[in-house]
Amino acid sequence: MGNADYVHAFAGVECAHRVTVPPPQPFFKSLKYTLKETFFPGDPLKQFKNQPLSRKLVLGLQYFLPIIQWAPRYTFQFLKADLIAGITIASLAIPQGISYAKLANLPPILGLYSSFVPPLIYAVMGSSRDLAVGTVGVVSLLIASTLGNEVNATENPKLYVNLAFTTTFFAGVFQASLGLLRLGFIVDFVSHATIVGFMGGVATVVCLQQLKGILGLDHFTHATDLISVMRSVLSQTHQWRWESAVLGICFLFFLLLTRYFSKRRPKFFWISAMAPLTSVILGSLLVYLTNAEKHGVQVIGHLKKGINPLSFGDLVLVAPYLKLAIRTGIITGVIVLAEGMAVGRRFAMFKNYHIDADKEMIAFGTMNIIGSCTSCYLTTGPFSRTAVNFNAGCQTAVSNIVMALALMVTLLFLTPVFQYTPLVVLSSIIIHAMLGLIDYEAAIHLWNVDMFDFIACMGAYVGVVFFSVEIGLVISVAISLLRLLLFVARPRTFILGNLPNSTIFRNVQQYPNARSVAGVLVLEIDAPIYFANSNYLRERISRWIEEEEDRIRSSGECSLHYVILDMGAVGNIDTSGISMLEELNKLICGRGLKLVLANPGAEVMKKLNKSKFIENIGQDWIFLTVREAVGACQFVLQTYKASKDESEAYNQV
Amino acid sequence: MGNADYVHAFAGVECAHRVTVPPPQPFFKSLKYTLKETFFPGDPLKQFKNQPLSRKLVLGLQYFLPIIQWAPRYTFQFLKADLIAGITIASLAIPQGISYAKLANLPPILGLYSSFVPPLIYAVMGSSRDLAVGTVGVVSLLIASTLGNEVNATENPKLYVNLAFTTTFFAGVFQASLGLLRLGFIVDFVSHATIVGFMGGVATVVCLQQLKGILGLDHFTHATDLISVMRSVLSQTHQWRWESAVLGICFLFFLLLTRYFSKRRPKFFWISAMAPLTSVILGSLLVYLTNAEKHGVQVIGHLKKGINPLSFGDLVLVAPYLKLAIRTGIITGVIVLAEGMAVGRRFAMFKNYHIDADKEMIAFGTMNIIGSCTSCYLTTGPFSRTAVNFNAGCQTAVSNIVMALALMVTLLFLTPVFQYTPLVVLSSIIIHAMLGLIDYEAAIHLWNVDMFDFIACMGAYVGVVFFSVEIGLVISVAISLLRLLLFVARPRTFILGNLPNSTIFRNVQQYPNARSVAGVLVLEIDAPIYFANSNYLRERISRWIEEEEDRIRSSGECSLHYVILDMGAVGNIDTSGISMLEELNKLICGRGLKLVLANPGAEVMKKLNKSKFIENIGQDWIFLTVREAVGACQFVLQTYKASKDESEAYNQV
Repeated sequence: MGNADYVHAFAGVECAHRVTVPPPQPFFKSLKYTLKETFFPGDPLKQFKNQPLSRKLVLGLQYFLPIIQWAPRYTFQFLKADLIAGITIASLAIPQGISYAKLANLPPILGLYSSFVPPLIYAVMGSSRDLAVGTVGVVSLLIASTLGNEVNATENPKLYVNLAFTTTFFAGVFQASLGLLRLGFIVDFVSHATIVGFMGGVATVVCLQQLKGILGLDHFTHATDLISVMRSVLSQTHQWRWESAVLGICFLFFLLLTRYFSKRRPKFFWISAMAPLTSVILGSLLVYLTNAEKHGVQVIGHLKKGINPLSFGDLVLVAPYLKLAIRTGIITGVIVLAEGMAVGRRFAMFKNYHIDADKEMIAFGTMNIIGSCTSCYLTTGPFSRTAVNFNAGCQTAVSNIVMALALMVTLLFLTPVFQYTPLVVLSSIIIHAMLGLIDYEAAIHLWNVDMFDFIACMGAYVGVVFFSVEIGLVISVAISLLRLLLFVARPRTFILGNLPNSTIFRNVQQYPNARSVAGVLVLEIDAPIYFANSNYLRERISRWIEEEEDRIRSSGECSLHYVILDMGAVGNIDTSGISMLEELNKLICGRGLKLVLANPGAEVMKKLNKSKFIENIGQDWIFLTVREAVGACQFVLQTYKASKDESEAYNQV
Repeated sequence: MGNADYVHAFAGVECAHRVTVPPPQPFFKSLKYTLKETFFPGDPLKQFKNQPLSRKLVLGLQYFLPIIQWAPRYTFQFLKADLIAGITIASLAIPQGISYAKLANLPPILGLYSSFVPPLIYAVMGSSRDLAVGTVGVVSLLIASTLGNEVNATENPKLYVNLAFTTTFFAGVFQASLGLLRLGFIVDFVSHATIVGFMGGVATVVCLQQLKGILGLDHFTHATDLISVMRSVLSQTHQWRWESAVLGICFLFFLLLTRYFSKRRPKFFWISAMAPLTSVILGSLLVYLTNAEKHGVQVIGHLKKGINPLSFGDLVLVAPYLKLAIRTGIITGVIVLAEGMAVGRRFAMFKNYHIDADKEMIAFGTMNIIGSCTSCYLTTGPFSRTAVNFNAGCQTAVSNIVMALALMVTLLFLTPVFQYTPLVVLSSIIIHAMLGLIDYEAAIHLWNVDMFDFIACMGAYVGVVFFSVEIGLVISVAISLLRLLLFVARPRTFILGNLPNSTIFRNVQQYPNARSVAGVLVLEIDAPIYFANSNYLRERISRWIEEEEDRIRSSGECSLHYVILDMGAVGNIDTSGISMLEELNKLICGRGLKLVLANPGAEVMKKLNKSKFIENIGQDWIFLTVREAVGACQFVLQTYKASKDESEAYNQV
């Protein structure tokens, strides 16, 4: 009897369950399953099944316009809560809108426009009950730096504004397409760690930019990196205006104080929410009363009364600028999407409801497409405003409608109020908002828990602060992807040992009391076997075997006979991986050893079978558990030894 | 007693081994291990350890110049074998060199030069015993199409040739840097499947290009795609020269016949190896005797006698072309590296020796850098020539030296022979070589075993044939990376069930007889939990729970109490993944269930501990095996039920 017969006998008696090759599945069925899990993971079509056509239509409408679903159940209680929340966020939206528009080098009125139309669209189409729509600092700066590189906002303001609309249009188209094509998972590739670093970096850069307003400087660098800005600031010390600086620092102090107070007593969140508008009104009053605008304090100036003019005809769809607008649109579109989705999901979790990523993307996209045609620039659901909305007790998206109506009233009647608002107040508001984005506590948490995440975070931060926003973005995406690729390219492999008094086999590094079995080397592979790691794995496994044989040789133990691969953690294998196993098998056979597999998954078994690898090593040498594999190896070793002893004894007789 | 106490009691009694948090490892120690596994996986410095300095120097020299290692052991037997192999590959190198140089739109003599210097360098530095160095068709075409796009080879031949040298130079620099920086694993990201498709596509395109030579056309499109070429060919039917076509088809038939013969009788491999040179000599004789060159049969023409002139001064390092040369150098450098490494590894496996990827890269790089300074263009170890070398029984890299010497003799004395070689013979040689690269059997194998690999392969093929070589390359790399990213972005999750009469838990889809345990849902996650999949996993797991509760509700079984996550296949987790687990835990608690973990690995435990997640769910709820986890859940459920029954009975009394 040869080894193959022994193991066949063992397997028949000792192993109640065997690893079988799964029945061949029709290719299209498994393709359908894969596509469904990739593109429709939330099974959004479940409720459409087995419904009459009319019901399907209603459900379809409800899918795209969630307002139809919740509006009938809207109550007076809800309205009261939403009214308060809406007015609170409007008081934040007005100064922030103006400030961020200035940051983007756009006319301040655009910031107010952008808080009027998009929230209305979102209220109809969005599925978050807490998201408050508005512009964000990060993207405002990004628009200023990307578009500003090609078109000068002061020399050619009309073209610049039109390019901002076009960028918004393409960002919207891109967002809506991602949603319609069910590609929402692309946003998941922007990791939380890189967002922390990226946001922190942008906030730092934006604060540095505000030195212009705070110090009352006329000339300022167009670059955003730390070194250029500091050089620009320090080379103009004689131009610093102390009046402006004092005013700015006072307002900043006031704003920080209100935030500190609100944080300690969450009930008074509205103090912090109202502070920016209070600052604007106080600042404007001060300027109006002292005529400071005539003494060199820069003010916003005249704002046109009236609601959003149409801007559909302003979109720049011609050659030299089209590419710029599309590129900027895609980049900014992804960033605001990542922020909006993260914010929506986080608050949905607090209230325990669910957000469909793809549906949200369609809502964001539509909001920005319509926005771009009504003089708005890029909007999303910023964290700060949404948090205020949530704290103010909003119940539904009606708070966005209330905010929009408040903005409409402002646009129609109150714009003259802002004529005297000093720019330095806007700078203080921006700095105050940005300081909240520098999340050093999150960075410390990353440092403590996961060094690689911390490196990704710092890479993004350093890239943004010392080079440019785009470089920071590229660095962060590259580091994130690198991590995923490195995981696949350099999977971990472990030696498994037997835990004393048990049938359990575990990693000997993690469980130092696990003991290896004489004559058997058990290895675990911790990743799918793909082209990217098959060369590495072949070399690593043969190195494990060499090291084990060296160790055995020096310690004088029983020599090695079996190499067991625990495939439990191998999720999948491709043709390169199968070739690797075939080569490994040859190599192991060449050393006079035998390769044994334990616990391969369904997908792996299917492919090993198709490629005839199972025939190659023998179906009997594939076991359900490591324990059974080790048992079989020991059985064969002992039986073989016994029969050898017997035949030797026989020969001697 | 609460549930926590019950499980604590159970764990103390029933679980001999617990999952412990590994002792904190110094950050730099684990960083060092990670870096070592990433960049020095083969542990090339092992033999340097504990050696005196002089020995270290010798070892270092041997590392960079392996010839020092094997030359002292070189025997007369080896020389005899290498002589035969060297002369055989030289007879292949001469016609192939001329043909490929024509394909690259370079002067034919460059093909001969490129088989003289680089093989000498490789013989000294390379670690493969079988690799035969020379130019390859794929890269020749790529150079023609990439450089040809910017500089016309017929209008500005000098600049074009110099750019080819510069490209070779940068390819060499890039290859050597990859080797020195230990980044050899980058080449592993080019998967075997995409190489099959890419090579097949290029071979198809090259064959189509040869229609020019075969049909004797003067004008021909510069595009390489199928449609442009066919249009160009079919629009000139009146220009077709039947003499040329007949000659070409005869030679092609002759070449294919010899290959067929050699394949059936491997001993006569040299017939196929000698066939191209025979064709060249026969064709030249034919032209010389019939004066056909004066009757419109295109011939190579005069070739300069003498060995390689220096070309160091010809490198174009100035602005408008530098970028082009660097870009082309990097692309072609990676392609030839991927081919050379794959070929070297495959033949090393036949003879059971090992090739150090990084060392090979340094050898390839140096060979191309020196080549670019001695009038050679890009060389590597082509499969066809290496296979002939192997079949001819080569023993060491000395066969390369023999080939180089044969080429030297040819360059010094025999170039006039090729003056009358008709171009149509070269076309036949190229087509013959390229037909061998269209590996349809490999494509069928991919179709049978792994559909995704087949798609990657066909994507590369279609991209090359219908668009351009570059587009094919981008498509193939994109599909390969997409597969890796999709694996991480959409990991599989399974429900586990208990196999009857055992304590084993396995995927119920793979083992349909596995039974679920009442009140407990066991899920396995099949991939690391990273930012790219944490959103998906949260939603997928909560969907599993919902589906399970629906099922239980409709079947009227005992309601769900525990969700056990089998973390055995979770190789790693990042901070986004930990947040996901925290959110999932909240969500599960919110449904009145309890989250239990089974078998988390060392890396995962470390991070869960640092982030306080273990405190959060309770150390007692983490088990070494699924069986123990299920056992504990059942124990608590029963004890709780018993104590409830008891207290009910007590109350009734």
